[in-house]
Amino acid sequence: MAFTFQVNDEVKFKHDEALLAKSQGFKPTLKHHVVTPTALVALDRQPKLLGGYGVKKVAEVSDLVNQPLKRDGRIILDFGEHCVGKFSINATATGSPMDAPLFCRIRFAEMPVELSYNSADYDGWLSKSWIQEETLHLDQLPATIDLPRRYSFRYVEITVLDTSPKWQVVFDQPQVITQSSVDARQVTVPKLADPMLKRIYQVGLKTLEDCMQEVFEDGPKRDRRLWIGDLRLQALADYATFGNTDIIKRCLYLFGAMPAEDGRVVANVFTQPKDVPDDTFLFDYSLFFISILSDYENYDADDQLLTDLYPVAKKQMDVALAKVDDQGQLQLSDDYPVFVDWSNDFDKTTAGQAVMIYALRQFIQLAHQAQDDQVDRYQAALDQLLNFAQAQLFDSDQGLFVSGPKREVNIASQAWMVLAQVMDDATNKAIMQKTVAQLFPVTGIATPYMYHHITEALFEAGLTDDAIALMKHYWGGMITLGADTYWEAYDPNQQDYSPYGSPLLNSYCHAWSCTPVYLIQKYLIKGGLKNAKRESDAQ
Amino acid sequence: MAFTFQVNDEVKFKHDEALLAKSQGFKPTLKHHVVTPTALVALDRQPKLLGGYGVKKVAEVSDLVNQPLKRDGRIILDFGEHCVGKFSINATATGSPMDAPLFCRIRFAEMPVELSYNSADYDGWLSKSWIQEETLHLDQLPATIDLPRRYSFRYVEITVLDTSPKWQVVFDQPQVITQSSVDARQVTVPKLADPMLKRIYQVGLKTLEDCMQEVFEDGPKRDRRLWIGDLRLQALADYATFGNTDIIKRCLYLFGAMPAEDGRVVANVFTQPKDVPDDTFLFDYSLFFISILSDYENYDADDQLLTDLYPVAKKQMDVALAKVDDQGQLQLSDDYPVFVDWSNDFDKTTAGQAVMIYALRQFIQLAHQAQDDQVDRYQAALDQLLNFAQAQLFDSDQGLFVSGPKREVNIASQAWMVLAQVMDDATNKAIMQKTVAQLFPVTGIATPYMYHHITEALFEAGLTDDAIALMKHYWGGMITLGADTYWEAYDPNQQDYSPYGSPLLNSYCHAWSCTPVYLIQKYLIKGGLKNAKRESDAQ
Repeated sequence: MAFTFQVNDEVKFKHDEALLAKSQGFKPTLKHHVVTPTALVALDRQPKLLGGYGVKKVAEVSDLVNQPLKRDGRIILDFGEHCVGKFSINATATGSPMDAPLFCRIRFAEMPVELSYNSADYDGWLSKSWIQEETLHLDQLPATIDLPRRYSFRYVEITVLDTSPKWQVVFDQPQVITQSSVDARQVTVPKLADPMLKRIYQVGLKTLEDCMQEVFEDGPKRDRRLWIGDLRLQALADYATFGNTDIIKRCLYLFGAMPAEDGRVVANVFTQPKDVPDDTFLFDYSLFFISILSDYENYDADDQLLTDLYPVAKKQMDVALAKVDDQGQLQLSDDYPVFVDWSNDFDKTTAGQAVMIYALRQFIQLAHQAQDDQVDRYQAALDQLLNFAQAQLFDSDQGLFVSGPKREVNIASQAWMVLAQVMDDATNKAIMQKTVAQLFPVTGIATPYMYHHITEALFEAGLTDDAIALMKHYWGGMITLGADTYWEAYDPNQQDYSPYGSPLLNSYCHAWSCTPVYLIQKYLIKGGLKNAKRESDAQ
Repeated sequence: MAFTFQVNDEVKFKHDEALLAKSQGFKPTLKHHVVTPTALVALDRQPKLLGGYGVKKVAEVSDLVNQPLKRDGRIILDFGEHCVGKFSINATATGSPMDAPLFCRIRFAEMPVELSYNSADYDGWLSKSWIQEETLHLDQLPATIDLPRRYSFRYVEITVLDTSPKWQVVFDQPQVITQSSVDARQVTVPKLADPMLKRIYQVGLKTLEDCMQEVFEDGPKRDRRLWIGDLRLQALADYATFGNTDIIKRCLYLFGAMPAEDGRVVANVFTQPKDVPDDTFLFDYSLFFISILSDYENYDADDQLLTDLYPVAKKQMDVALAKVDDQGQLQLSDDYPVFVDWSNDFDKTTAGQAVMIYALRQFIQLAHQAQDDQVDRYQAALDQLLNFAQAQLFDSDQGLFVSGPKREVNIASQAWMVLAQVMDDATNKAIMQKTVAQLFPVTGIATPYMYHHITEALFEAGLTDDAIALMKHYWGGMITLGADTYWEAYDPNQQDYSPYGSPLLNSYCHAWSCTPVYLIQKYLIKGGLKNAKRESDAQ
């Protein structure tokens, strides 16, 4: 997530210190590995890869010490895998005595194409501060360049901006100390006969691992914060893989502790240097607080968690229900928009109604579990919402849902209505068959987030082959373009699409894209989610 | 000094550990002051100042906290005086929560004109690494930006390269912790009725103070190392002001400890991260080892210093005398050139002969003091050198010295021959009168180093008014252009001259320009040098 800018700096927030303390108690301890580069490489024109760039090996890493560099000298280190962590390298002077400082630039790239861009050319709206590039002066050598910041990368380019005519610099012992709250090396990967599915799973697992830091981050390169929409998908992926439930509890308590004074859970929170809610609100994201709590309780019933957070969940539903008219129609306002997807080129009314139903179903289950004596009221509201959706939003002539005053037929409406189980199974299957037949290929959608919901709706509708085909087309498409981890944004119809106008700002490891691990475990491995749970319990 | 590039990386050096230990024992303890800015300023077109730029005050420093800055926001802090030290400033975020790092650039300028140049445009031969500019990312605010490097500046420009559309940065509490081995605030400035001479003295004192670090540095901004030619002038200036003799001994021991295996003292040494001689040799600079030792002994006879270093001094003279033919003519080779000045547009033969005589006179005095039984041999050599100079190099028709096969008449020859007292006082006076009449105004000379020797020769010849006029024209010229400290290079005929093609590389506080304090004390204050000695003894 990112891409959404609301400024609501007049909003006041609650800070429930008891819940924040619980959140702190579930803060994970980071695990570290030392990773060294696998090769010295050069940028290489490779038309089939993202942006037309790959790398080619030019030397062994051990050859670094034989490459004295002077002004404009350049090396690119390939770490062989996506890394999140802190980089260091030794630098020594050779030649005459060092009569001027070393001046160098270090760039970190997740994808080779980033190295083909010049940061000075970027003038987009998103902050330049995200570009992973440092310039530094070292007054004395030898020295260890031990950068204090964390970076997200596979490639490290070092350009010597200057030494002096009298001496050169020699680099040695590059390494990264990676960090994550989980360790993919400790996880059993399911046996998948299909090599592409196997790779899709592995890349998803790496993506999830690298986004699991002290919270679930949306992207370790850019934004680096906890969004609730991403949290929902990351938690589902986590249950299917690492089973690290502490971090999920940490994140739920964070959101639960810091709603706005009107009770709405915010769309995202910051945790550094202290816990602060962002002043951004999205209707569906607030409702997903319910969803995440419900998913958690389904995975591992936790009475304390439920007791602590059920009131927050209920508040979200009450705020949302206030937006439903007496016909059962959700009426959204501009100051509390439904997200569904980045694209604003389709009507989101019906998808919003579906998310409401989806969350309300989960809420009613929680209400039963919490022994809330108002369950009937919510059940009645659900019936109204369902009735309106079935009677007014489903076009029985077309066999598809329509959305908005122009009765627009779009994929998001079908997918979410299927996920919300508004129609019976047979109708849901028919809806998704028509979607595939009439609305595919998907166009105008660049987020793995929306592709996830479409794919899951296909699985839920029993269209497993179509779901696998879409998964291979979309996540497999990123792999074919060179992905080591999945991206924040990818539109198969515009492969170089950047929402920010430059790949330097794109996040090529982004949490909401990791869901193939969940989809594969849930829909393609017999007893997959249960297996994952059992393995995590045994650890 | 700088500007000279020799690469002799095959030369082997001695390392006399006993002398290096003595050098270490005289290492000064740095003194620190906290200096805060006097105003927020903007760059201002002021045609009469260097490069056409000055600054104008735009706000009080206390107003900084009321200036939230976003992308492209900029402030310039004026510290009101030249500073050498470490800079820090606090940064805080305001607005919505900080959803991206702070990205900013900090530039340090000694003169306003530097701020009118873009470092990216510099492509000269001197290392870009000297440009005092840092870019940095701060992941979390509030934070104190406490830069670890030392800078030399009066002005600090901070440009916000980016925040994000949601928040701004506010800076506060800028300061520099200055450093020097001396403290000009503790020194009594002589009473000078002439306001320009008074200012010339003050600026010289500040220049010397800011160059006196753990060694005498040639420039605290650029090069930052110990050159022996600069040391000679700095030591003379130090006797006349601070009287900090320890640092002079430290520097003499450094040079004495690390000659080349053939005995030659190098032109400069590095002391960080360890003591290393540079592989650069200049004939006159090696001889100045003698000069500096002699000046020291004249200021404060030190038997231990003489015992330790007389052998090194003698070796310099012996190596030099090997270059003198049996006619008494110095015959220099390309691999051991005489410096005299940066300019290579004049013939240096006669000036070189004069420096040789100058140093030999001082050496003979040392030899007497050291009770060297070979004094007669050196006296004979001096007579030969003098005879050749008087008979062959002085053109009695012109009343001036000539230099080289084309019998070139240049100022450097006259000045150095007068300083070397090759002719009698009356002739010296006549030579300098002719020099003023026929060769002034000085052209093609951009170094305070050469201007110093011309000025001193005028004083030595008794032409006090001409000396003062030249001092006002040259050092006063820098002051008129806005100097807070004196510059490495200044040519009154080409005021914007940079030996490096950009003021970003110029050093505007450079040791070899500090000598007006010495000249004024020696030649304009009755008993000046003796007064300075007395004050320093009393401390």
